[in-house]
Amino acid sequence: MYLTQGLHRCLQKQPDTIATIAGERRQTYRMLALRVAKLAGAFGALGIARGDRIAYLGLNSDCYTEFYFATFWAGAVVNPVNTRWNASEIAYALNDSGSRVLLADAIIVPMLDEIRAMVPDLRHIIWIGDSGQPDGTLDYEALIDENLPVPDVRCGGEALAGLFYTGGTTGFPKGVMLTHRNLVTSALGAGLMRFIHPATTFLHAAPMFHAGDFSGWLITAVTGGTHVTVPAFSPQAVLSAIEAHRVTDTILVPTMLQMLVDARELKDFDLSSLRHIGYGGSPVSDAILMRAQQALPGVALCQAYGQTELSTFATMLMPEEHIPGSPRLRSAGRAVVHAEVGVVDADDHFLPAGKIGEIVARGGHMMVGYWNKPEETALALRNGWLHTGDMGRLDDDGYLYIVDRLKDMIITGGENVFSTEVENALARHPAVAACAVIGLPDEKWGERVHAAVVLKHGTVASAGELRDHVKTLIAGYKCPQSIDIVDALPVSGTGKVLKRALRERHLSRTN
Amino acid sequence: MYLTQGLHRCLQKQPDTIATIAGERRQTYRMLALRVAKLAGAFGALGIARGDRIAYLGLNSDCYTEFYFATFWAGAVVNPVNTRWNASEIAYALNDSGSRVLLADAIIVPMLDEIRAMVPDLRHIIWIGDSGQPDGTLDYEALIDENLPVPDVRCGGEALAGLFYTGGTTGFPKGVMLTHRNLVTSALGAGLMRFIHPATTFLHAAPMFHAGDFSGWLITAVTGGTHVTVPAFSPQAVLSAIEAHRVTDTILVPTMLQMLVDARELKDFDLSSLRHIGYGGSPVSDAILMRAQQALPGVALCQAYGQTELSTFATMLMPEEHIPGSPRLRSAGRAVVHAEVGVVDADDHFLPAGKIGEIVARGGHMMVGYWNKPEETALALRNGWLHTGDMGRLDDDGYLYIVDRLKDMIITGGENVFSTEVENALARHPAVAACAVIGLPDEKWGERVHAAVVLKHGTVASAGELRDHVKTLIAGYKCPQSIDIVDALPVSGTGKVLKRALRERHLSRTN
Repeated sequence: MYLTQGLHRCLQKQPDTIATIAGERRQTYRMLALRVAKLAGAFGALGIARGDRIAYLGLNSDCYTEFYFATFWAGAVVNPVNTRWNASEIAYALNDSGSRVLLADAIIVPMLDEIRAMVPDLRHIIWIGDSGQPDGTLDYEALIDENLPVPDVRCGGEALAGLFYTGGTTGFPKGVMLTHRNLVTSALGAGLMRFIHPATTFLHAAPMFHAGDFSGWLITAVTGGTHVTVPAFSPQAVLSAIEAHRVTDTILVPTMLQMLVDARELKDFDLSSLRHIGYGGSPVSDAILMRAQQALPGVALCQAYGQTELSTFATMLMPEEHIPGSPRLRSAGRAVVHAEVGVVDADDHFLPAGKIGEIVARGGHMMVGYWNKPEETALALRNGWLHTGDMGRLDDDGYLYIVDRLKDMIITGGENVFSTEVENALARHPAVAACAVIGLPDEKWGERVHAAVVLKHGTVASAGELRDHVKTLIAGYKCPQSIDIVDALPVSGTGKVLKRALRERHLSRTN
Repeated sequence: MYLTQGLHRCLQKQPDTIATIAGERRQTYRMLALRVAKLAGAFGALGIARGDRIAYLGLNSDCYTEFYFATFWAGAVVNPVNTRWNASEIAYALNDSGSRVLLADAIIVPMLDEIRAMVPDLRHIIWIGDSGQPDGTLDYEALIDENLPVPDVRCGGEALAGLFYTGGTTGFPKGVMLTHRNLVTSALGAGLMRFIHPATTFLHAAPMFHAGDFSGWLITAVTGGTHVTVPAFSPQAVLSAIEAHRVTDTILVPTMLQMLVDARELKDFDLSSLRHIGYGGSPVSDAILMRAQQALPGVALCQAYGQTELSTFATMLMPEEHIPGSPRLRSAGRAVVHAEVGVVDADDHFLPAGKIGEIVARGGHMMVGYWNKPEETALALRNGWLHTGDMGRLDDDGYLYIVDRLKDMIITGGENVFSTEVENALARHPAVAACAVIGLPDEKWGERVHAAVVLKHGTVASAGELRDHVKTLIAGYKCPQSIDIVDALPVSGTGKVLKRALRERHLSRTN
């Protein structure tokens, strides 16, 4: 089980099939395999050995597919970096993973000096941008030109394939360790379930550094489909790409799905090739589902629930289960073919259907641990089950309903935001005495980040000033979209902030 | 990745779905899971610990499914025994595997004392037959009644799941070691390819101890379908079962497929539920394919090529590639989604398309080795590839054509027969000076076993007498169906018997 296997199969079965399309640029599997073998040679020449980490900071492009395959070909480990992070967050992931080489596009330019200063062990930055190559970086195309192809080390099984950083409750991201076995299992299982269809023309519309889009990359890579990329999501870009390249499948977060079906330009495009949209992150509302079914007749919707720690998913709500008005539309579906799912109480005893507890899952797709975090790993994987931190219940037919999150986490536009991290940033402002960050329902983003702040006696700070302060510390999407200055936070008898009370107080006020 | 996962999922998703049907007997997944947990308890009470081997010698039945699941549930290792072997062969597999417990039906009765005498370490025989329970055996139903259900040990991944004995070139069978990872990978990949359809009503028509049928068992077990069994293949039994239980999928060897489509009773049955027949062992002829397409319109045929060492298969010829008159119908199809396939020369260098060499394959489905045979294991798995012992070539689109077998092996009616084993048996007759065993083309069986024998000077022995002698030593299906008494065998300069010359001599004579 190794992730370059699909590339070898394509080279044998269909060398002249188109492997990647990025704008006007397209290449066959034969061309891709040669570039991958040469890029792996370049990695070797740069001192990359088996098990070394290689990071990627860039928008969606065909380079991402070359990077994934070439890293696996060299026996190394991918570290896809969130493009919406600021320099400190990126530096943290690069330092924590010990990445020696970073591929980067124009996104890095404003942060380049800062990142270099903060990541002393970073040996090389490979420039994958189109123009304006910064000094001191290596040119991607020149590296591929100059290096000879090397044989695939065919490293797989229990070998580490990737470190995927996800937000952490302590305010620092954790590197989720996924092996070749994890990822191949996930791809085969998801392919069997037709989460997206095998051997398809897949559009990377969501960010490729995301576990969600990566699951689409995996199925396409394992079954030998065509990867189409748009640099970033916009309804216009996605609709154009679907029409131009006869895209059959894509994966979106619900916010993107809504923007797509509500786009005025929708009717101007020929979307007849589109068969299937996978989505995840949160259930889709009846209203959006009905608009989607009207706007995209014949397109099947499939929901998946999971997290990076599960090589993305554990349950699926199948296309035939997407019935407007059905209560199951509020569920996350049932266990996928490669997973087992359960609900446990605080003592890790399994609960019967109907009872609410923490959602746990296990199977060949379950991460082997968090990078350099044995305690967090032991806690997350106790008793051999991945503890998701989400609260939920199962019904009598095995449908899973997510009712709350144990981890204090907000999902906004498909991104995880840990409240603690935002609270830590707020608390560093000299005027802030106490604060609490919660997620509030949002029509467009699923949830939005909201903060309640108590100021220190005798100080003054506006909501705008507090937001500007937070933005200097963490990525923009994590900053509170609204801030209430309050006299006091609701606290429990033991002094713990009652976030549920805060949420309810806010909701009753706005209704 | 553990093989009881599908059972747990069914218990959660569809406890009232029918899991097994054997004649009039049927049970739901809820009932099956309870019986499995109790049978695993019984195994524990009989002293079975993790990693211990449990053997099964019996015709197809629902007990087979209970045996598989209960053994995995207990963390033990299955050892399905070929029902066509004689007592010595069975004793060899039981001794070599060190099986402590054997489940057996009426097949064992005539050999019981002999097996007991030859397998001193066999502690318990569990009687799964309907009536006539032999003295000193344990009753299957009583064991399930008397024991309490135990929790699933959920042993999986690299843990051994089964020892599957296949004929050996040295005359002794080798135990192919397959892990949970091997078997789950194979099931997910084959399910993704739709070798048989997931969540199906699957008919076990071929012997369940066979790797071929076992691959159907795996897909059905992983995706939660219904297992229908007939004790043994006959057109009448298969046709009745398809009609009675609305069977959707089955796996046959070409001989069975031919017998089925040529059966006079075919038109008397409602076969409208049947969607899919997987077959393997050898390509199907144009004539049979056309008869199948005529007799079973709307039934898709899918061919798989492989061997037990590959958790059954490495390539597949898909339904849409079954075009009468197409030269690709003579191929074994292309690499499956979980495998990589190649052709190498005698120095293990990969050969380009068109060149004939030994077929090799690798992937997560590749066996971990032969039980207690480190040298044979190292040889078979050299350079990380499974060497199949079959000669073949690839075409420019990755289709694999099998041209000959390196291993001196005959496939008759889907069973592997190693020439050496038959030659060893023949040579033990006092009148035999030299002999050579080859496979000759056979309309019904694919190949049939043929022997050429040189008698010792001054001795006399008829073909019938030689066959009777061989039958006392090895299974009936391995005995030569025809024997020529000849003056001399064709030999090479180095004294090696030229089997190809023998085959050609015979074929030219009969044409």
